[in-house]
Amino acid sequence: MAQRKKKTGKAGKKTARKVGKTAGRAAARVATTTTRRKKKLDGLDKKTLSLIESTAERVQKKIRSRVLPELRFPIRSLSNVKYDRRVGYFQLGKGAKTRALSVNTVKNFAQTLRLMSISKDMVENDDFATKREAYYVSKNWGDAKFTDQPESDAVMDDIEALASLDGLSREQLRFYPEEHGGSVAGNLVVIDRDTETGRDIRIDCTGFGTGSYSIPHSVEHLRFETDARFVIVIETGGMFQRLNNHKFWKSARCILVEMGGVPTRATRRFIRLLSEAKRIPVYAFVDCDPYGIANIYRTLKVGSGNAAHINRFFCVPKAQYLGVTPQDILDFKLEDATHPLQPVDVKRAKDALKNDPFFKAHKPWITALNKLLKMGVRAEQQALAKWGLNFVIEEYLPVKLKKKSFLP
Amino acid sequence: MAQRKKKTGKAGKKTARKVGKTAGRAAARVATTTTRRKKKLDGLDKKTLSLIESTAERVQKKIRSRVLPELRFPIRSLSNVKYDRRVGYFQLGKGAKTRALSVNTVKNFAQTLRLMSISKDMVENDDFATKREAYYVSKNWGDAKFTDQPESDAVMDDIEALASLDGLSREQLRFYPEEHGGSVAGNLVVIDRDTETGRDIRIDCTGFGTGSYSIPHSVEHLRFETDARFVIVIETGGMFQRLNNHKFWKSARCILVEMGGVPTRATRRFIRLLSEAKRIPVYAFVDCDPYGIANIYRTLKVGSGNAAHINRFFCVPKAQYLGVTPQDILDFKLEDATHPLQPVDVKRAKDALKNDPFFKAHKPWITALNKLLKMGVRAEQQALAKWGLNFVIEEYLPVKLKKKSFLP
Repeated sequence: MAQRKKKTGKAGKKTARKVGKTAGRAAARVATTTTRRKKKLDGLDKKTLSLIESTAERVQKKIRSRVLPELRFPIRSLSNVKYDRRVGYFQLGKGAKTRALSVNTVKNFAQTLRLMSISKDMVENDDFATKREAYYVSKNWGDAKFTDQPESDAVMDDIEALASLDGLSREQLRFYPEEHGGSVAGNLVVIDRDTETGRDIRIDCTGFGTGSYSIPHSVEHLRFETDARFVIVIETGGMFQRLNNHKFWKSARCILVEMGGVPTRATRRFIRLLSEAKRIPVYAFVDCDPYGIANIYRTLKVGSGNAAHINRFFCVPKAQYLGVTPQDILDFKLEDATHPLQPVDVKRAKDALKNDPFFKAHKPWITALNKLLKMGVRAEQQALAKWGLNFVIEEYLPVKLKKKSFLP
Repeated sequence: MAQRKKKTGKAGKKTARKVGKTAGRAAARVATTTTRRKKKLDGLDKKTLSLIESTAERVQKKIRSRVLPELRFPIRSLSNVKYDRRVGYFQLGKGAKTRALSVNTVKNFAQTLRLMSISKDMVENDDFATKREAYYVSKNWGDAKFTDQPESDAVMDDIEALASLDGLSREQLRFYPEEHGGSVAGNLVVIDRDTETGRDIRIDCTGFGTGSYSIPHSVEHLRFETDARFVIVIETGGMFQRLNNHKFWKSARCILVEMGGVPTRATRRFIRLLSEAKRIPVYAFVDCDPYGIANIYRTLKVGSGNAAHINRFFCVPKAQYLGVTPQDILDFKLEDATHPLQPVDVKRAKDALKNDPFFKAHKPWITALNKLLKMGVRAEQQALAKWGLNFVIEEYLPVKLKKKSFLP
């Protein structure tokens, strides 16, 4: 390791010069590349291209006039975050870091422009890359190649934060996460487009029997038709399957979404777009434990601290917490189907009460979390099976939906 | 803990008597319960009911004639497993354990019959329970209730092993695992049935746009229509999304299945039923590393050792290994997009060569694994992006599919 460092040190200047050239070429390439294949670009695509091109042109101009260029990125950390109840999610502050081209930053500088160049190609060709693929593509960049994925992820996060200021998410840059999407069933027609012909494809989510619709990795282009009264987002696959097999979506006129734990970006964005486009409420149905409340539900509703630059796209501020609530444990007599809170649960709940701006801003949550801590137990959504497998469909959900006393 | 044990010890006989009664009642209940709602039972349903009823009647008869009943279960362990290349998967041996009703076994005995009783209800009412739900249902069983889920899982595994001798899987008993299913896109129509009307539902897997069909938790009732030439099962969601967005299934006339790591039971069963019903080959496309080979692919193809009683349902003996192979790393010049094998990788590969009856039975695999160990590197399927994001579609897959030199 020491030897390797020394080598890098010796070859430092030479590498910097070479990579400097690469950075220049990358900028030139971004600024001049022509579209390979004509594809109808939508408004967000044009905005993305405009951002990339103007950034690259600015850098190229500086380099041509022999001035060292710089790039400015928003700072991504809790220290640069604010929470406003009316806005509904953690927002990025005004803090920014500037990266000027120098011997030390030249590789990173070149990589940033290269990634933006790939992004431009992908927008123009209606393609995409996973973060992992983007890392591998760099293997052909000579000295500018990424050593490992954390390196490429960090550069991508910077670009994403930059783009977020223009209302663009990473998905618009065409970098998709490697993740499993959620599943959907119920009173919803999803309108996608055929990637070959560009024509509309109508996907009727009432038509999949015991199966369901699997959300794609990017959902920005989807449109919706529905007469559903609400969306119910469900923590576990088993509960989703139960509600789907018994066509709860039909009797309750709703849409079911399976999150499978903390929902993926695509799932959160899907729910957000759907709830906004159709102005329907979103009810979360998760386990009554600090993880279900402070991780799954909180992330769904307001986002997370270390990803403040993307919360504006991915959180669902309209979401409400249907259950299972601490009060439900008493109301539905689930006491003997609970489990003791573990130290990690207690810590998580106490952290939420002490440090989390979301929970601190909502009295009903402070009361609920304190009650949970006092009871010292947690209850899973499956615990309702104590009263029969379909108690959840015949009793629990109808009672909760009629009462409408959801947690914020 | 000591105190608790003592208490159980004191109350032991009394509990045993009470639970003994419960066991008797459970057996009686199974033997006499009437169907709540008429539902068309298929052949497997009838077989399941017949197994449950005959088991319960045997126990009930013994109890009535004041003889202690017993239950026999196959032993589930590697020591009771055999591998035959022609059969293609790890098979359960003849080893069995007998559980006679006694003070020590009475609780377990009652629980076994209770679970079988739930199973009977569910078959008759076309319902199901996750393993977790089954555990919670027991909370109403008085002294026979399960203390924790490992306890109920063990009893369920015994019942499953018992049923497997009759060609019945846990899904036929209506106990579903809590898992995320895989996704499907391409030249396939899945025929499901409407849970309300019993009528056929046709699901066209070419019609999901950038999304896909999410496999349900139980697939036994599904039928298929297809003109596909093969099924390609894919390790990562990102690669699946790429092949789907570029409609690789159309140009190659095939079906795409996303496994998302080690495939779930439902996904494996889905692939198995599809490949057998339609007699089409299955090609696995996973990372070139000991995990992709010895865990994901091996589990898909022949099953696993500690679940020998279910391999016959869930493995896909017809599966072949398309890639990424160690030879591909050389043929497609991926050397600089590889990662060094970690000690855990080396251990896994050596274990496979030394202890795994599947790899030991196939010379090409011995050669391939030794080559991988000698090269000392691993390559992910995304590494192909080194040559361009769609190199996999334009070059790699066409070349491999034309050559057809798959690993067994």
